[in-house]
Amino acid sequence: MIVLGVDPSTVATGWGILDGDSRAARAVDYGVIRPASRLPLERRLHTIHAALAEILGRIRPEVLAIESAFHHRNAKTALALGQVRGVVLLAATQHDVDFEEYSAMEIKRSAVGYGAAGKDQVAHMMVRILGLRETPPSDAADALATAWCHLSRAARPVGTGKPS
Amino acid sequence: MIVLGVDPSTVATGWGILDGDSRAARAVDYGVIRPASRLPLERRLHTIHAALAEILGRIRPEVLAIESAFHHRNAKTALALGQVRGVVLLAATQHDVDFEEYSAMEIKRSAVGYGAAGKDQVAHMMVRILGLRETPPSDAADALATAWCHLSRAARPVGTGKPS
Repeated sequence: MIVLGVDPSTVATGWGILDGDSRAARAVDYGVIRPASRLPLERRLHTIHAALAEILGRIRPEVLAIESAFHHRNAKTALALGQVRGVVLLAATQHDVDFEEYSAMEIKRSAVGYGAAGKDQVAHMMVRILGLRETPPSDAADALATAWCHLSRAARPVGTGKPS
Repeated sequence: MIVLGVDPSTVATGWGILDGDSRAARAVDYGVIRPASRLPLERRLHTIHAALAEILGRIRPEVLAIESAFHHRNAKTALALGQVRGVVLLAATQHDVDFEEYSAMEIKRSAVGYGAAGKDQVAHMMVRILGLRETPPSDAADALATAWCHLSRAARPVGTGKPS
């Protein structure tokens, strides 16, 4: 299964593509979309959407995995994040790619083993789990961890809570 | 000048197109985009984006006017609104249409004369100002009022506060 993980933000949207399953996953590619900071919001959204559309068209993943956003954010942050999420979800739908949401805690737990892990720990575990030769930028590592969370989850039959 | 006003929401996104200036404005068309309520969020965003893209391609307005969202919303509402705003702003940028934001108070003041006006008053004044034969649905009336706010504002040289 090919999964695209996305960590959305107007400043730096991380993305990472995994292929395989929870026993043997390979990082196909990863990166960070950084719209020029001088650009107004609408052009930054356009840059993010265009970059994801290019990746979705080229890689054709089965699933786009993203962190859920139903937690503890103030209204201003939530509005900004919502605008980026809107164009991410749109890009997925335009390419007929399902999307799945996981909480930050689920993502960290699947990567590091506990839900309160820091960013450095997530990046470190992505290097180990995926056998990367270098430590990815932290936004890309978060995106890879989101994709990894989906692969780990997909391996479990619903309702048993155990690996299949 | 042709202006498209948009009142975004995942449930009912109002839109309204005005042509002219603040002395003689004509309502070219208006309506409400209502994605089927059974659709998941990402498909509703897709429906809204596709409908606006069709309108922008057909009418080719100079400006897309929208209510600003920097006020008193809780994080959950702001996230939902942000997601719709994201695809609205993306559609504008993809069609090389500038966008302008106005506060709810500015929009109501330009339509009714004071910033605390209710929805019925806004719709009533749009009928009068634009010479409509029927009262538009309230979401479309809000969108027309947003477009009207832009036309009224555009008529004033910056800094004088008086009609040109």
